[in-house]
Amino acid sequence: MTLARAAGNARRTIWATGDGGVEIIDQTLLPHSYATRRLGTVADVAEAIKVMRVRGAPLIGATAAYGMAIAADADPSDAGLGTARDTLFATRPTAVNLGWALTRMMARLAGAGPADRAALAWAEAEAIAAEDVALNAAIGDHGLALVETAYAARGGTVNILTHCNAGWLATVGWGTATAPIYKAHAAGIPVHVFVDETRPRNQGASLTAWELGEAGVPHTLVADNAGGHLMRRDMVDLCIVGTDRTAANGDVCNKIGTYLKALAAHDNGVPFYVALPSPTLDLSLGSGDEVPIEERDAAEVTELAGRTADGRIETVRIAPPGTPAANPAFDVTPARLVTALVTERGVFRPGELKAVFGGTLAA
Amino acid sequence: MTLARAAGNARRTIWATGDGGVEIIDQTLLPHSYATRRLGTVADVAEAIKVMRVRGAPLIGATAAYGMAIAADADPSDAGLGTARDTLFATRPTAVNLGWALTRMMARLAGAGPADRAALAWAEAEAIAAEDVALNAAIGDHGLALVETAYAARGGTVNILTHCNAGWLATVGWGTATAPIYKAHAAGIPVHVFVDETRPRNQGASLTAWELGEAGVPHTLVADNAGGHLMRRDMVDLCIVGTDRTAANGDVCNKIGTYLKALAAHDNGVPFYVALPSPTLDLSLGSGDEVPIEERDAAEVTELAGRTADGRIETVRIAPPGTPAANPAFDVTPARLVTALVTERGVFRPGELKAVFGGTLAA
Repeated sequence: MTLARAAGNARRTIWATGDGGVEIIDQTLLPHSYATRRLGTVADVAEAIKVMRVRGAPLIGATAAYGMAIAADADPSDAGLGTARDTLFATRPTAVNLGWALTRMMARLAGAGPADRAALAWAEAEAIAAEDVALNAAIGDHGLALVETAYAARGGTVNILTHCNAGWLATVGWGTATAPIYKAHAAGIPVHVFVDETRPRNQGASLTAWELGEAGVPHTLVADNAGGHLMRRDMVDLCIVGTDRTAANGDVCNKIGTYLKALAAHDNGVPFYVALPSPTLDLSLGSGDEVPIEERDAAEVTELAGRTADGRIETVRIAPPGTPAANPAFDVTPARLVTALVTERGVFRPGELKAVFGGTLAA
Repeated sequence: MTLARAAGNARRTIWATGDGGVEIIDQTLLPHSYATRRLGTVADVAEAIKVMRVRGAPLIGATAAYGMAIAADADPSDAGLGTARDTLFATRPTAVNLGWALTRMMARLAGAGPADRAALAWAEAEAIAAEDVALNAAIGDHGLALVETAYAARGGTVNILTHCNAGWLATVGWGTATAPIYKAHAAGIPVHVFVDETRPRNQGASLTAWELGEAGVPHTLVADNAGGHLMRRDMVDLCIVGTDRTAANGDVCNKIGTYLKALAAHDNGVPFYVALPSPTLDLSLGSGDEVPIEERDAAEVTELAGRTADGRIETVRIAPPGTPAANPAFDVTPARLVTALVTERGVFRPGELKAVFGGTLAA
């Protein structure tokens, strides 16, 4: 299982096949098997986003953009595009990148005649994907400076805690929270990552641990419960996470449990950084309390899948039959707990967001 | 699967069989099957504590006490008892009740001749077990007043969040954190419990959810990550947890992740209560930082067991092969985050512990 299998697309999570479809890495199969999957219809794309074959705010945005290109191939009429847009928008509510990408695609196509739309749509989707890679690389460069500072202070291996997967699997390439880690590792700074398991979907155990292992970055998987203890014991130099939507006041909506780690970081004087590509900003929201929080299937809490010792994939139930469960997928970390936001334009305090990005994100 | 199967010992977790052994509920099988298991040797008892067939600080203490009675049957010499004591003490490091019970048993037997020790030992173990039930019932009565206060404030169902299992399964009977819940439910106060899954051993999903279901107490299982979000949304009226060891300054050592919930409770003005029977107090420790934190097998993080749809129990791996994992089993919640300790003598602030219990716990 190596990244080379991605046929020339190493460390890229989605790519056009050139025959009217896209290929993705099916992330529901990781870490047990690496397989790509072709999406050839809008329904394929919507299903892949909904069941989280692709996930992560930036990758959801790029996938939706490609979905619009697939739609433009099939029916480039205003009605056709509108239906596709609605179908894709309904897949998941929290990540703002979904709406951002769909709005950008619709705006690009609105001025063109139906006959020109397919080519325009594929080009625009490619542009969105390429921009994501560039944004994350820039986040990596700015975040690298923060890791260097921590390295100077610690005088040894920098211990970084991350939650969920804000890695290259969550984006088109590089990752948001992982970009500074990969850049630091490449620069020869000794880093070690505590990987939160991230229940209930286990994106840390199944995706982040896999990514870091493939890249040779030292890491240790921990239960989500452990981070506070690690920080109290001075075993964490900095936390860095992604975000699904960040409000104008700097409140950060991210995977459920992020808020708890931010509280622990604040209580222990550990810097808490959020890697934020600008398409994840939602300046239309005054605070994080306005972000719609996705409630997912309770079965994600009561059941989970893994590999048995003899290699079978089995789904097992861990609670008594019929146990009621709730599954809010995201929480909001108030800006007061965020040390800084690492963006493609530099590192900013939450209160600076509006001034820095307010003028250019009117889309 | 009903408690009636416990053959006259409903809602009791351990009992002497009258023929030189004890019977326990094998908690590693819950919630998928309910079965009792006979422990007839000190080795049986040590194994049961170590692999967590019995767990929970009060039940660990009572089980160790019975283990000393089994030892006194087999070899009542000073050497025999000393060896048994050492074997049992080495099973788990964090819960102070283990050492407390062993010290009490040794003190009781020291003054008697070997021929009298077995009968004395069984009587003392029975006394420890019966006292545990009484202590927890008293905790329930004092905690009931706190639930009543929350009910008056909310004017509707009281939402209680608990972490891990500090239920009757963690004690000889009643439970510590659950005693006020069971008393409130019996008194007709509408209560609803958010049950933290409690990774990596899932004691919430497998034990607390089972207990509450058997008792008919409304509850909802949530990932450990969810509690902060629930508190921010005003969906929790109070938190109540158990403790494995509480230091003289009121610092509480409990299941890993407790600290994170205490931070969230503090940040949202939600009362955070700790149910504390006095044998769980360790006044010899100035602060919680002195509590030894058990590091358990990394496989508890990377693998877990559950029931398949067709009824088999399977163990599945959820991380890539060879993923390093850390598994600290407990953390320390600083006294400043604890609203009050609910003890058998009443409800006290952390700072009051020494004055209330200091004179009588010199053992």
